[in-house]
Amino acid sequence: MAVTQQRFSIRTPGRGTIEITEQVQQIVAHSEIEVGLCNVFLHHTGASLIMCENADPSVRHDLETFFSRIAPDGDPAFIHVLEGPDDMSAHVRMVLTKTELTMPITEGECTLGRWQGIYLYEHRITPHTRDVTVTVFG
Amino acid sequence: MAVTQQRFSIRTPGRGTIEITEQVQQIVAHSEIEVGLCNVFLHHTGASLIMCENADPSVRHDLETFFSRIAPDGDPAFIHVLEGPDDMSAHVRMVLTKTELTMPITEGECTLGRWQGIYLYEHRITPHTRDVTVTVFG
Amino acid sequence: MAVTQQRFSIRTPGRGTIEITEQVQQIVAHSEIEVGLCNVFLHHTGASLIMCENADPSVRHDLETFFSRIAPDGDPAFIHVLEGPDDMSAHVRMVLTKTELTMPITEGECTLGRWQGIYLYEHRITPHTRDVTVTVFG
Repeated sequence: MAVTQQRFSIRTPGRGTIEITEQVQQIVAHSEIEVGLCNVFLHHTGASLIMCENADPSVRHDLETFFSRIAPDGDPAFIHVLEGPDDMSAHVRMVLTKTELTMPITEGECTLGRWQGIYLYEHRITPHTRDVTVTVFG
Repeated sequence: MAVTQQRFSIRTPGRGTIEITEQVQQIVAHSEIEVGLCNVFLHHTGASLIMCENADPSVRHDLETFFSRIAPDGDPAFIHVLEGPDDMSAHVRMVLTKTELTMPITEGECTLGRWQGIYLYEHRITPHTRDVTVTVFG
Repeated sequence: MAVTQQRFSIRTPGRGTIEITEQVQQIVAHSEIEVGLCNVFLHHTGASLIMCENADPSVRHDLETFFSRIAPDGDPAFIHVLEGPDDMSAHVRMVLTKTELTMPITEGECTLGRWQGIYLYEHRITPHTRDVTVTVFG
C-alpha cells in the first residue's frame, strides 16, 4: 500500500467547464498503483468539480442554462455582493455541485464510465487560477 | 492495511430509487476489514447515488416531486435532447446529487446512521443496467 | 500506512451552519499522518455537510435564503410531513448538499483553500444532537 499526492493549477477563462480527466489519469498512471482510490480536491469556493457527460458539449451548455435560472447573477435577495453580481451565485453553484470526487482505480487507471469526464466548473465571470490536489491510494 | 474491490450491476425499472445498502454491506463484510473507508461509485451520468432516509418511502416520492419541479422533462430551454425529453433532465439531476459516496467502516461494517440508506437513483424513464464499483480500504 | 478514526457529537441550536473545521484538523493532527486523506461523515438525513466560504457570515445567510426559496418549509406538494413542515424540506436540502467530504492531508493537516471551511448545516428548526465520524488514512 502506498499514497502519492500531486497538486496542479489551472487557469480558467471565466465561467464555464474545463475537462481535467487527462491530468488526473496521468497522475494515477505515474503512481503505478493498480487497485485503489483517487481523490480529486479543489481548493476554492467560487468554482467546483462535476462529473459530467463527456461526449456532447451541449450538456454543459444546458447545465449553465439550468444554473443561470436557479442561481442567477445579481439576485436582489443576496447581501454577499462584495465581489460583484457573480459572487454569491458562484458560492451557491459551488455548494450544489462538488468540491471533491473520489473514484476507484482498477488496472492502473480511474475506471470512469464510458461517458464520464471530470470537469472543473468555474463559476466566476472573470478568469481565475484554480488549484487542484490529486491523492492516490492503493 | 488492505484494499478490495468489487463491481456489480443493477437493472433498474426506469426512473426511481433502488436501495443498495445491503449489497454494499455484504462486500464490506466479505473484505473482513474492521476499520477503514468504503467508496461506492456509479459509472453513469444518467443516474446517481443518494444517501436518503430509509424508513418512509414517501421521502423518495417527495424527492421525485422536488426534482420534477426543479428539473422537469422536456424543458424547452435545453438543446441536448438527442435521447428524448428525459435526457438533459437526467444529467441535471445527476449533477445535483452524487456519483460516489465514501463512508467510514467501523467494527466491520459501514457505520451508517439509523435512518441512512444508500440508494441508486435512476433518472431515465426507461429501464437501464447500471454498474457500481465498491472499493474497501483498511 | 495507518488508519485512525474518531467520532464526536455536536449539539445544534436548530437550523443554520456550525463550523467544524477545527475539530477535524485536531483529529488529523492527533493522527500524526503527514500525507493522506481525511473523510468526514455525518450520520443523519436531516442535516448535512457543506464546504463553504469561511470569511463572511453573509455567505451562509444568503445560502439559507437560497434554500428557503428552493426547498421551503410547508411545501403543499410534499406528503412526508410526519415531523412537521421542516421534515421533508430538510431531506431535500440534505440530498442537494453533502453527507461526507474527503480531503487531502499534506504536511500533517487538511490542506483546505484559504477561504474553505467545513460546516455542519442543520436543516431542522429545533436543536438536534448530530454525530460525525472522522477517518484519517496515510
